[in-house]
Amino acid sequence: MSIDVAISGTGTTKYGPSEKSPADLGQLAAKEAFEQAGLGPEDIDGLVLSTQNSEILQKQGNAVLRFAEFLGLDVKFGTRTEAACVAGTTALKTGHMAVKSGTVENCLVLGVEKCNELPSTKETISAFAFINERDFEAQLGANAMWHFAPYAVRHMYEFGTTEEQLAEIRAKNSRFSTKNPKAHFQKELTVEDVMNSPVVCKPLKLYDCCPISDGGSAAILTSAENAKEQVDVPIYAKGYGQSMIPADVISSIPDHTEFTALKKAAKRAYESAGIGPDDVDVVETHDCFTIAELLEIEALGFCEKGEGGKFVEDGQLELGGEIPTNTSGGLLCRGHPIGATGICQATIIADQLRQETPKGRQVDGATIGVNQNLGGPGTSQAVFVWERRQ
Amino acid sequence: MSIDVAISGTGTTKYGPSEKSPADLGQLAAKEAFEQAGLGPEDIDGLVLSTQNSEILQKQGNAVLRFAEFLGLDVKFGTRTEAACVAGTTALKTGHMAVKSGTVENCLVLGVEKCNELPSTKETISAFAFINERDFEAQLGANAMWHFAPYAVRHMYEFGTTEEQLAEIRAKNSRFSTKNPKAHFQKELTVEDVMNSPVVCKPLKLYDCCPISDGGSAAILTSAENAKEQVDVPIYAKGYGQSMIPADVISSIPDHTEFTALKKAAKRAYESAGIGPDDVDVVETHDCFTIAELLEIEALGFCEKGEGGKFVEDGQLELGGEIPTNTSGGLLCRGHPIGATGICQATIIADQLRQETPKGRQVDGATIGVNQNLGGPGTSQAVFVWERRQ
Repeated sequence: MSIDVAISGTGTTKYGPSEKSPADLGQLAAKEAFEQAGLGPEDIDGLVLSTQNSEILQKQGNAVLRFAEFLGLDVKFGTRTEAACVAGTTALKTGHMAVKSGTVENCLVLGVEKCNELPSTKETISAFAFINERDFEAQLGANAMWHFAPYAVRHMYEFGTTEEQLAEIRAKNSRFSTKNPKAHFQKELTVEDVMNSPVVCKPLKLYDCCPISDGGSAAILTSAENAKEQVDVPIYAKGYGQSMIPADVISSIPDHTEFTALKKAAKRAYESAGIGPDDVDVVETHDCFTIAELLEIEALGFCEKGEGGKFVEDGQLELGGEIPTNTSGGLLCRGHPIGATGICQATIIADQLRQETPKGRQVDGATIGVNQNLGGPGTSQAVFVWERRQ
Repeated sequence: MSIDVAISGTGTTKYGPSEKSPADLGQLAAKEAFEQAGLGPEDIDGLVLSTQNSEILQKQGNAVLRFAEFLGLDVKFGTRTEAACVAGTTALKTGHMAVKSGTVENCLVLGVEKCNELPSTKETISAFAFINERDFEAQLGANAMWHFAPYAVRHMYEFGTTEEQLAEIRAKNSRFSTKNPKAHFQKELTVEDVMNSPVVCKPLKLYDCCPISDGGSAAILTSAENAKEQVDVPIYAKGYGQSMIPADVISSIPDHTEFTALKKAAKRAYESAGIGPDDVDVVETHDCFTIAELLEIEALGFCEKGEGGKFVEDGQLELGGEIPTNTSGGLLCRGHPIGATGICQATIIADQLRQETPKGRQVDGATIGVNQNLGGPGTSQAVFVWERRQ
């Protein structure tokens, strides 16, 4: 019999530049998840670690063995996953499969990233170059702004999307972030603030971009049966979709007016969950840039292709709108500790479905939530559908 | 209903220093596996990539997206796994879970490593330091010889194991390797050759150590149902066990007379397979050093603790002995491209169970085989049990 899988506990540190070590960040996030699930390290028999820059920034490979030691775990299955910014969600899926296949009982899925190790942002961005394709792009100074600006240019050209509409995405997420004490930034920004921020890679300005954050996030995945014993409100895994399209350099991306891989991943996720976009009550998307969130709500099917700008302008991503999006502040304001991001998204969705999100961010009565995570230049995408059952 | 999982195709490149790129090595191994399973890239919907040194030696993160592109795959689940030398087997298990959980149909598990990128072995070993624990050991120049020599010293002290007995392990594996055209080394060595080789880290001499190899290995995991359509002789996944004990520096290893983590992993593997060590017909162990193979046959239960030396001396690891071990030549002679090793072990076992191994290496009538893989200083261990059904 196939095992139904649920989240019983979640935890996350405050995001932002931190003096804490990766071990500390991981332990803090795990501790919160343990407490929520009423479990201790002795109950955990699976560990999936998601961390991206361990070798480059911490000079540490085989980090999963270190974390098993720090946390005092005796694991029947343990590994690190790495897939750039999407690794958090591939880690969640790996943990999900570990439980579903009967390999482990209680799997800790832990995302940890300490990006702020080097003296300057310039050096950090340079160190991150290795995430990009090395033969054609990394050596030219490829970076994420480079990869996402062309999407914005093309969407504006084809559909008349405006810089102000993109700025409104940041403004919206900043308003949510003021009610998230764990967010990297918690300051309200206006459309004007965004429009007046320095150009980074035209048409993207500073406030169109997410920051470089440190942080740890954790989720405990277990069988539905266990979860019901551990907590009052398990959050069930309802569906999953992933896609990688064969494009990791700008010139091989087939279409810059959309996230083609996300359309595929979303279709797979909805099909496996037996739902459509209309059934989703709340979503955390991978808004590493404002244009990313716009493409994501289109690819996830919340509005038609090309209509994202208007959809944002009409307030459809707000509480009370069609689909409240990034109520945590998103990557733009909550922050983006790379390997932790997908897992943090799941913790936010779990809080929403448990109706435990602070007022002003809570989507009342939400029962189905989605976390959407991407890696590389938008061509590697993963979507997890989560559910609270009545 | 839980899905039964089997290997339908395997492939491996020749191991050893190579002019080929990681992409080439991966494609060659995958091509062989595709051909064996009668599949093409269009049939593959899962990819688990195991590679260890990508960031450090190739300056390439997010390698899984690159490999999905090189191979032309459209994956519903894809990630890289990293767990030092044991990553190949955690990748196999991840692929196994992806099929078993119904996430994918046909999962390519691909291990690729190009270790020989730097001008000298000295520089390579130095680059590998990041695999070791950074705060106490890596900065002191920790390396694998450092970690494994104390096991040899202690086993000799406690049980009277001799350097000649260890040398015999290399000699045996070298004899097998002369019949493996894909082995890194294919030259027969005698006990005297090993004894006369230069001391590297007393009591380990040069020929007690495995080489630094490049190579790629692949296995296609699929449902038993699919596998029966694809090939005449599927190789079924029968059991799995893993363990990490909280010890990643020499001084925290609880007992240097044994691989404690492997005893746990083996117990878990045998229990999940419903077998005991007596049921195993052939085994590939992680003989990164001669002492490792000796500790492994003890921990896997093929002989009593402390009796490994005598067991080797008595020829029990030869064809016709109690448990033919490392008939490929093992890491010592076949080579050790880190992330690929565990997957290569499974390809060797699959060949054995299919009765397709060359004469002089084939264990006639073998139906149950084991691949055992380790990471870190012997404290992270994984065991996969494979079966040919009648």
